[in-house]
Amino acid sequence: MPLTEFSLIQRFFTRQRVKNPSTRLGIGDDCALLSVPDGYELAVTTDTMVENVHFFAGTDPEELGHKLLAVNLSDLASMGAKPISVMLALTLPKVDEPWLSGFAQGFLALAERYSVDLIGGDTTSGPLTLTVQAMGLVPKGKALRRSCAKQGDFIYLTGSLGDAGLGLKIIRGYHCAYPDAALTRFNRPNPQVAAGLALIGIANACIDLSDGLAGDLGHILEQSRVGARLDWEALPLSDAVRAYIYGTGDWLMPLTAGDDYELCFTVSPEKAALLTVDCTKIGVIEAAPGLRLYKSGAVQPLTSKGYEHFS
Amino acid sequence: MPLTEFSLIQRFFTRQRVKNPSTRLGIGDDCALLSVPDGYELAVTTDTMVENVHFFAGTDPEELGHKLLAVNLSDLASMGAKPISVMLALTLPKVDEPWLSGFAQGFLALAERYSVDLIGGDTTSGPLTLTVQAMGLVPKGKALRRSCAKQGDFIYLTGSLGDAGLGLKIIRGYHCAYPDAALTRFNRPNPQVAAGLALIGIANACIDLSDGLAGDLGHILEQSRVGARLDWEALPLSDAVRAYIYGTGDWLMPLTAGDDYELCFTVSPEKAALLTVDCTKIGVIEAAPGLRLYKSGAVQPLTSKGYEHFS
Repeated sequence: MPLTEFSLIQRFFTRQRVKNPSTRLGIGDDCALLSVPDGYELAVTTDTMVENVHFFAGTDPEELGHKLLAVNLSDLASMGAKPISVMLALTLPKVDEPWLSGFAQGFLALAERYSVDLIGGDTTSGPLTLTVQAMGLVPKGKALRRSCAKQGDFIYLTGSLGDAGLGLKIIRGYHCAYPDAALTRFNRPNPQVAAGLALIGIANACIDLSDGLAGDLGHILEQSRVGARLDWEALPLSDAVRAYIYGTGDWLMPLTAGDDYELCFTVSPEKAALLTVDCTKIGVIEAAPGLRLYKSGAVQPLTSKGYEHFS
Repeated sequence: MPLTEFSLIQRFFTRQRVKNPSTRLGIGDDCALLSVPDGYELAVTTDTMVENVHFFAGTDPEELGHKLLAVNLSDLASMGAKPISVMLALTLPKVDEPWLSGFAQGFLALAERYSVDLIGGDTTSGPLTLTVQAMGLVPKGKALRRSCAKQGDFIYLTGSLGDAGLGLKIIRGYHCAYPDAALTRFNRPNPQVAAGLALIGIANACIDLSDGLAGDLGHILEQSRVGARLDWEALPLSDAVRAYIYGTGDWLMPLTAGDDYELCFTVSPEKAALLTVDCTKIGVIEAAPGLRLYKSGAVQPLTSKGYEHFS
């Protein structure tokens, strides 16, 4: 018997037991059903990954499953939402059982780490395209927004910058003495879910870094109608990224490379003492529009603003 | 200046004003925010359409936008959910402004008819693949399920059967004297939102017809662990479909052709008098598993069970 659309989904993706208390009905009907507790709003986001655009052909399916879910959970984290469930739309050129098994393993392992239920989806044939919609809960009126940065806010960053960008350069042939950490950051990003939750009530504005700090912070600045001063010397860089910059002179890379999936957020000076999140202060919000990058005591031109399709 | 991902989404899809009271935050941040009123659950569904799989290359983009949303609203209708919002993941081979303009027009016109807000999405480059996730509200515990048909229930159908299938045959070259209605049914299906809402508290089980009556009713039978008797002579058929069957002998087509997007539902005989939905009784739920089709007084073999990918 050929694998049908229905048995496919069933075989690889329904082994997960429903765990999240918000799930009223999971996979198997025309819709899934969710409950949203009193005092909460539902945060909803979607991200698509296309072969040869967002990932290389031949990417380890287990890492791909992890990353597809991670980038969506990262969007929830940036709003301070607690993830509860996801829908998965898979377009596959053929039924490749080892690929599906690996992909499901990477996807579901990360889902289980956060008690996220896979509540439904769609499987179609066609060029490899993967879309997730992720949903999470956030206390009513408390979501972290891009548009609420205020003049005088300090700008912070979780984790370190540019490691995923270095990982991509290594995949493309750059020689690095200690490549493993950078490759892991590129292939298996960790969504900053706990940090996002801990920033509720403290951060004024927040975004996750998918397209590079310069471009993503730029969204905060535009939507908040403010500007910023960034101090290059304050950027949290790993030894491997410092070695890359020393070797190549490419000191803009950590600002323009994507896929870091750290959180960039702003906090008023009065609330800075309340921060419990492990983070680094990298700049300050200013009234004048635009992003001013200080390096070696002078403003440096920013020549790239992050990755954009069709550009 | 080249069109960027951001201006693309903005230009074609944000002209819609936020209208639905459930929308707390629409397009423009990492997530959208929804409120779910007390006493309601959120129904969530996703459907993908791929060029050359679900629609022909060269399909009118306005009709495609309409149909993509309609098939998702149809899933909400089959659960008795009132649609409130949608996310749209667009993968496009290139920026084709007339195409995007037509697509957005078809999509947003249907969204506005039901006060559905487009609250977010993702635009990527790649082979033409369109994914929608649709969300709706349903009173807590009242959603219409596939799994709740009971022995003795009458089986009903909204509208007529096989017109979309005939439309597809016309596109593929079948000559029909009056093709317009069938083509419209295939290209611009009407989701049965009002019927789904009116069936809450009356129907025991419900499904929407996307893959053909035999296969879709089969899902109700499997998940409810029952069987059914269908009466071919009772099927609601248009004159055009009757003429097609008369000319070709293909009397199975209305049972196996997809894309009708009518609702098939079951109602206990005691509640049948409460029905306010315009519908036709086509059979009865029986204890013995399986689907028995009666035609000319005898059980007929069903050789096809609806469309499946990868089969």
